[in-house]
Order: sequence, then structure tokens, then C-alpha cells
Amino acid sequence: MAVTPASASLESLDLDPAFALHRGGKLEVRSTIPVRNADDLSLAYTPGVAKVCSAIAESPELARDYTWVSNVVAVVSDGTAVLGLGDIGPAAAMPVMEGKALLFKEFAGVDAVPLCIDCTDVDAIVETVARLAPSFGGINLEDISAPRCFEVEDRLRALLDIPVFHDDQHGTAIVVLAALKNAARLTGRPLSALRAVVAGAGASGVAVTRMLLNAGIGDIAVSDSKGMIYSGRSGLNPYKEALAADTNRAGFTGSTAAALEGADVFVGLSGSTVPEEAIASMAPDSIVFALSNPDPEVHPAVAARYARVVATGRSDFPNQINNVLAFPGVFRGALDVRATTITENMKVAAASALADVVGEALSEDYVIPSPFDPRVAPAVIAAVSEQARMDGVARL
Amino acid sequence: MAVTPASASLESLDLDPAFALHRGGKLEVRSTIPVRNADDLSLAYTPGVAKVCSAIAESPELARDYTWVSNVVAVVSDGTAVLGLGDIGPAAAMPVMEGKALLFKEFAGVDAVPLCIDCTDVDAIVETVARLAPSFGGINLEDISAPRCFEVEDRLRALLDIPVFHDDQHGTAIVVLAALKNAARLTGRPLSALRAVVAGAGASGVAVTRMLLNAGIGDIAVSDSKGMIYSGRSGLNPYKEALAADTNRAGFTGSTAAALEGADVFVGLSGSTVPEEAIASMAPDSIVFALSNPDPEVHPAVAARYARVVATGRSDFPNQINNVLAFPGVFRGALDVRATTITENMKVAAASALADVVGEALSEDYVIPSPFDPRVAPAVIAAVSEQARMDGVARL
Repeated sequence: MAVTPASASLESLDLDPAFALHRGGKLEVRSTIPVRNADDLSLAYTPGVAKVCSAIAESPELARDYTWVSNVVAVVSDGTAVLGLGDIGPAAAMPVMEGKALLFKEFAGVDAVPLCIDCTDVDAIVETVARLAPSFGGINLEDISAPRCFEVEDRLRALLDIPVFHDDQHGTAIVVLAALKNAARLTGRPLSALRAVVAGAGASGVAVTRMLLNAGIGDIAVSDSKGMIYSGRSGLNPYKEALAADTNRAGFTGSTAAALEGADVFVGLSGSTVPEEAIASMAPDSIVFALSNPDPEVHPAVAARYARVVATGRSDFPNQINNVLAFPGVFRGALDVRATTITENMKVAAASALADVVGEALSEDYVIPSPFDPRVAPAVIAAVSEQARMDGVARL
Repeated sequence: MAVTPASASLESLDLDPAFALHRGGKLEVRSTIPVRNADDLSLAYTPGVAKVCSAIAESPELARDYTWVSNVVAVVSDGTAVLGLGDIGPAAAMPVMEGKALLFKEFAGVDAVPLCIDCTDVDAIVETVARLAPSFGGINLEDISAPRCFEVEDRLRALLDIPVFHDDQHGTAIVVLAALKNAARLTGRPLSALRAVVAGAGASGVAVTRMLLNAGIGDIAVSDSKGMIYSGRSGLNPYKEALAADTNRAGFTGSTAAALEGADVFVGLSGSTVPEEAIASMAPDSIVFALSNPDPEVHPAVAARYARVVATGRSDFPNQINNVLAFPGVFRGALDVRATTITENMKVAAASALADVVGEALSEDYVIPSPFDPRVAPAVIAAVSEQARMDGVARL
């Protein structure tokens, strides 16, 4: 028989408010209809439910109207890249996935079910999620380590006719692009005039780089733990090789710090640190997004000595780059029109809508709205739904 | 692009109250904690959640205390044997699975997630559910056709250390045993004095027969669509062969109707019909459970001309044999003590507790309580939890 910690030890854990809050979990499933008596039961369950089932069997698309499926997103993780903690496995990933599900509901009314799965093989993850697809209106992949996450997402997008979105990639990329657009506007430069350095070539580093390239950034170079990524560097995985082909026109081959000399933008997505001197060596009006959590690549107070705009992933400094600004609205907007997929245009539209919320209040300390700004979700939802229609992927 | 029915056609469907009730589905996922501001978010999500994840990574059993997992049951179906509708597929099965989830919550506070899966191969179902197991405290299998359902359940029970329960089998068997115990008491006979005929050798027929055998029924014989099942009948699947070996000591080889002559108990779980004459030919004080839905094997008013006790699966006649009397309390009782499995003893304990709710009010029209009797769930929960402890399968 498994051993349960003595309740005394749970009580001592619960002295920490984070543990106390998590006791018993953070979610519940509820009925949206009344079941008070036999009449209610005869409509919600047998025999009344039978005709609804029969109608769906005949016209499968009716499942989107007469079940909860079109409002439910699966938050799927294998627990291999959880926060800064790394590969902690599916059981230990659950508090994060529950948190994600809770944010989906609170910020955009999306019902989300956390599914932590006990397999890390790409084929197995793809197969499992594909088998579950009839139960969901969308799939939010979460905290699956690179480079497997790229193939998992690509294959599921090809297989399924519902949105599949790896939030660590695209949620981050949308919010970074929104903040960067505003930082560029503040400093009076188009994106095409900016040279950027991205530290980190994992899920978010790759996606941010791709999105900034699509948005027309002037030049962008990416580093990983071994230094700058360039064509011909030995030992690159296929995803980094593709990145090398499309980035680093300046041809940096050394450290992140060396590439930062004279650069306009730094985006840290690495969990590593960047020396103060490297930040000091950047061009005037530089933009520093030190996004590692809980410890930014450079302390924001230090970065602010040199940079015009500083953003972090933390809520206790200005300009918080937080995925919750994007993913609830992106899925709500996609589900509202029953989009078959989330296109690149839809992500760009989400970033623009998010940037526009800031409007004329733009300042060094305000290039991105607060997660609790009530204008955020409606703006993102509207932009994503509209773009889905324009892209011809909306079913409503 | 898929075609959505014009809203006009949805409006005409919605004139039916069953459709109107199902519009948009019957479930939602909600947060159980407040997320009003950045402080709340910093505890429920990053950075606060990280220490909870780390603690679980170190001591996996803490997942049962600090996530919702130990209160969540997956309601898993492949849509192959839904109600009387048969193999209608996973999308069309969803309304039933949502209904089941809703009943779990309403009757016993169990959070349940409907998962309709797009695979019917035994290996694939077992593999899929096993991969999802870290996300759930129990697995309720539902509407998976026989004989695959037996192997799916057996293999998952062997693989997993959480309760796995095929409700079509065991939920039905528990309620039938409870009702039969009371019917036998009413007519002053022990179970061992009764000869029973079960029509139907699918999931519920097999499980009811096994449970009545375990409970010490005098003799029991089972029929399928080809007539009575006996040792040596050609073309029996392995499950029916095993059943033949353990049943039908009287050696019936013909029709259900022929076997009913002089029998004390009829249990219909077949979707077929039984002629009035066969019911008339049963022994005095006979007990007729005609449980097919929505059309019982024999109309209860007809059966009542000959039988002392008549039960059906319908709410509009006395003695409704309804699984909702069992499964919510069985899972609640198992989850409350974090049982690793549901033993035969736990099912028998549930049946006894359910029968005992009737008590001295026992009559021909009252051998089983109403699903809305508030004493039912607490009685089943207590009995199942206590038996789990006695059987050494409780972790709490």
C-alpha cells in the first residue's frame, strides 16, 4: 500500500499560502442545467438524451451545438518542460495545468480540462491527443520540451480540424510582438529598423523569432547554451538548422553578449544570465525583454540604467510579458467562430489588438497592458474571430 | 469547410425540450479559488505554483493532496454501445457521457470529465486510458460494447492503482442485487432458494450473473439472442463459455421462454421481448425485472398480472433499477479513502447498503429506493469506504 504523508506534514506544508491554496486542487466540473427531480433527469439523461445522440449520429456537426465540446479545450502536457523546473513528469505538472485551465475560464469563459499524460514519445503523444479529439473544441499544448514540441504540434495541426496551439511557443510570441510593436512606436522606429538578439532556442525562442521575422524585424539572431546559432555550426537539430538559415544575417558566431553590442533589442527566453556590460553595449534607445522567470536574464533595475524600455515576466515590475494576455482570448476567438485551425494571421491579429489596447497611454513603463485590464480579452477575441473569417477557417 | 446547419434548423430542433436543454452542453469547468488580482494569480499560477510542483516531483503522492486529481473521474467511452442505440461513435456518445458526469457531481460531489475516444481497438483503448491515468482519481468505463469491455476493464484494473469500473456491468449488477435481496426478503425466501433466468449476455448480463452467483443465488441460467447458453453450445466467445461453465445447472438448451417455466426470477437485460405466457409460467411469487430501456422485455402492467414484484429501468413505473443509485456513491466512497481498486466486496457492500435504505417500508412497489432519496448516496459511500478499508485497498 502506498504511503500517505502524515496529516501533520500536510499541515506544516499548508502554513505556506501557496500550498494552502492548492489543497484539494483548484478546479471543479459543474452542471449548467438543473437536475432536481425525475423530470429533469429524464431530459438530461435517459430517455431524453437518446434523441440528441441519434441526431448527432446522423449529423455529426450537431455535436458542436448540443454538447459542451465546442467550448472545451484540453490543456495537454507530458510534464517535460514545466516552468523553470524542467522534466518533472505528468503528476507534478498538474498544478500548472490546473492553473492554466482556471485562467482560461476566468479570463475568457473557456472550459478547459487539464490532461497530464504519461508518455513522452512524439508518436504516442500525437496518437493519444488525436484519439481524444472528439471530446474537445481545441487543444492547448503546454510545457512539452523542445524540439519534440514542434513535431507534436505540426503533426496534430495536420491531423485535426480543431485549433491546436502550443502556448509556450505562440502565446509568448504574440505577447512579445505586441510589446515590441509598442516599444518600437515609443522610440519612433519601425520594426524593420531594429536588430534583435534572442537568447534561447527552445519552444518560446523559436516561436518568438519566427513571429518577429514574419512581422518584418530588421535582423534577428538567436543563441542557445552553446552561443550564437549560425549556418554551419555543428550539432544543430533540424529546427535550429532551419532557424540558422533564416536568421543572423550579421553572422555572429560567438556569445550572446558579443552579439548584443550595438543591438536594438534583447529578448531573453533562456534561463541564463546576461552581463550588465552587454546590456550597456547595446544601441541607444535599446529595448530589453528579460523574460526568464522567476529570475530575469538581467535584473530590470540594472537593465533600466541603459535601456529605454525594459520588460520582464514578473508581476512586480512594469511591462509584464504574461501569456495570459493572449491564450484565453485566442482560443475564445477561435472557438466563437469554430475555427478549424489558428493561422499565423490570427496570431498577428491577436498581437496587434493587444498592442492597440495601450493606445495613447504608451510610455516606457507601459508598452503592454496588465493581465487584469478588462479591455484585453474582448480586443483579442474580436481580432482573432475576425481574422479567422478573413482567412476562411471559420465554420460560423 | 464543414457545413453548419442553418440556425433555422437548430431553432426547430430546439422546440423539443430535450434539444433545448442540451444546447451548448450540460457541463462547465470552474475555479474553486479566487483569481481577482495579481496576488491571487501569483499563488495560483507562477511563481507560487512552482513550489507545489516541486513538492509533488519529490513526493508524488502529494498530487492527491494538492491537485484536483483525487476527486476527478474520467468517464470514458468509445461510443460503441450507447443506450439502446448501439455503435453511434464517440461524437454522438458525448451527450450521455456529459449526463453521466453531471450525475456524478449532483449525486456525490465527484468531478467527472467526459472523454469520448476515437478508437475501438482494445489495445488502443487500454493504452490511451493508461496514458491519461496521472490526471484522474478513477476511471468510469461507459458504453463500450461486449465482449471488448471485459478485456478493457480487466487490463486497466491490472495496470492502474486507481479504481476502474465499467458502470454498464457493475453499476447495474449492484442495483439488481439490491433490489433482488429486498424482493427475496419480501417473499420470505433466501437467495439460495431462487432459480433465476437472465436474458442478455452483454456487459450487464454477464456482470449481473456473476454478482448473483457470488451472492449465492440458487441457480441461474443466461440467454443471448440465440437462446440459452450452455456448455458445449457452438460459437460461444470465451466470456460466454466461462459463463456456461458456471451457470445453468438445470441444463436448459432452448429459448428464454422455455427456461422461465417454474423460474422464480427473470432479469431482462437484452433489448428483446418475452411473451406474456412465459411470465405466466413462472413459479408463484415470481420476481420480474424487465430492465431494457425505453421498452422493457415485458410491459410492467402485463408482468404484474402474474409476478409478485416487478421492476423496470423506467422512472414512470415503481421500482426503477437506475445505475445512478450506485455509481456516484461507489466512486465517492472509493475516492474518499483513495482506494487503489474496487473489490467485489465493495460492490456487494454497496448493494447491501442500497437494499437497507428501503428497510421496513419494503413492499411490492418499493424494493429499491428512489434515485432522489437523500439517504442513498451517504449509505453507499459509507459502505464502500468501510469495505475498502477492510479489504486493505484504502490509502487513507
